Amino acid sequence: MIDADILERLADTVESRKGADPASSYVAGLFKKGTDAILKKVGEEATETVLAAKGGDKLALVRETADLWFHTLVMLAHAGLRPSDVLAELARREGISGVAEKAARAKE
Amino acid sequence: MIDADILERLADTVESRKGADPASSYVAGLFKKGTDAILKKVGEEATETVLAAKGGDKLALVRETADLWFHTLVMLAHAGLRPSDVLAELARREGISGVAEKAARAKE
Amino acid sequence: MIDADILERLADTVESRKGADPASSYVAGLFKKGTDAILKKVGEEATETVLAAKGGDKLALVRETADLWFHTLVMLAHAGLRPSDVLAELARREGISGVAEKAARAKE
Amino acid sequence: MIDADILERLADTVESRKGADPASSYVAGLFKKGTDAILKKVGEEATETVLAAKGGDKLALVRETADLWFHTLVMLAHAGLRPSDVLAELARREGISGVAEKAARAKE
Repeated sequence: MIDADILERLADTVESRKGADPASSYVAGLFKKGTDAILKKVGEEATETVLAAKGGDKLALVRETADLWFHTLVMLAHAGLRPSDVLAELARREGISGVAEKAARAKE
Repeated sequence: MIDADILERLADTVESRKGADPASSYVAGLFKKGTDAILKKVGEEATETVLAAKGGDKLALVRETADLWFHTLVMLAHAGLRPSDVLAELARREGISGVAEKAARAKE
Repeated sequence: MIDADILERLADTVESRKGADPASSYVAGLFKKGTDAILKKVGEEATETVLAAKGGDKLALVRETADLWFHTLVMLAHAGLRPSDVLAELARREGISGVAEKAARAKE
Repeated sequence: MIDADILERLADTVESRKGADPASSYVAGLFKKGTDAILKKVGEEATETVLAAKGGDKLALVRETADLWFHTLVMLAHAGLRPSDVLAELARREGISGVAEKAARAKE
């Protein structure tokens, strides 16, 4: 069974890279380069996710979505946020009226 | 405390919208429109996430990241995949050699 | 024959919409909404362009690329810039050493 | 004065890189890697353009928009299309009813 706490553990690992030697860690390197470098990665991974989905390759889609989620964790950490902040927002919407319908209204 | 199973519950809700009346549900409408409509939303939400992060508004960043994750769940469901597939991929990388370093190598 | 000045004429039209009634003009509406609304459109159109190219539909690709270029013109106008600023940058690179190779070095 | 034919000259240069040695030319390398590599670059440059615009740096915005337009030329060439195809589409819309309003309707 998948450990649902993986996002929190990942966030801990990412957090621990703040201030680490950029030469020794990919994430430390991203933190050192700063906001734009991190956001460029989020944009890149989103494009790669879209291409994988459009191409119909499920294995690639799982891999690219993992890359996308991972880089959003780096982005959240850089902003002093945790995955639980995002999960709480999702749970809040679900609690009010069903997530899907809430998301629909949020879009209108 | 945040329920870490929120992603799985959300995925169940999303799944239940397949074949539902598009007029009654935002997600059912996306499924009806198909792959391109869903992927356009992933791209849109990624851009909005990047703009929120660049703008430095933490509340907006949480909200946009929630929108982005939510639409990746719709994309995964449309491809017959679950959030656990992505979490398993992240856990697999973590298991091998530490997630951050694995991600780094995957990028090279 | 295609009028190569179309970009300048379009930029003039876009410029003339600054301060116009948002209800009467799509571009005036974008200017009124401001930077984020304009940049969201650039991101959206980029995703749609990528989807059209990946899907192999040439007519759709032309249409989406036109939408993308058009919204970059709105973005440039909003920043007080002209298409000629971008064309001059492209010509400058070409003048130095051949555009393609210059672009390559810029990427490294 | 800016030579408006720069897009056509660039397209010629890009076209001439088809089948060239990937080691000798950045564009030849992109053609060799294929559709996904080219579209990833379009997505990347779109994100960098959005970041530059949001950051308010005009020089960076001109540079990133030039990169974005350049990579759309590579994408068009890869699909057997020319910048004139896109300019003709923009001119066609302008001819019908004014570009801005046409674009507005196209979006609805």
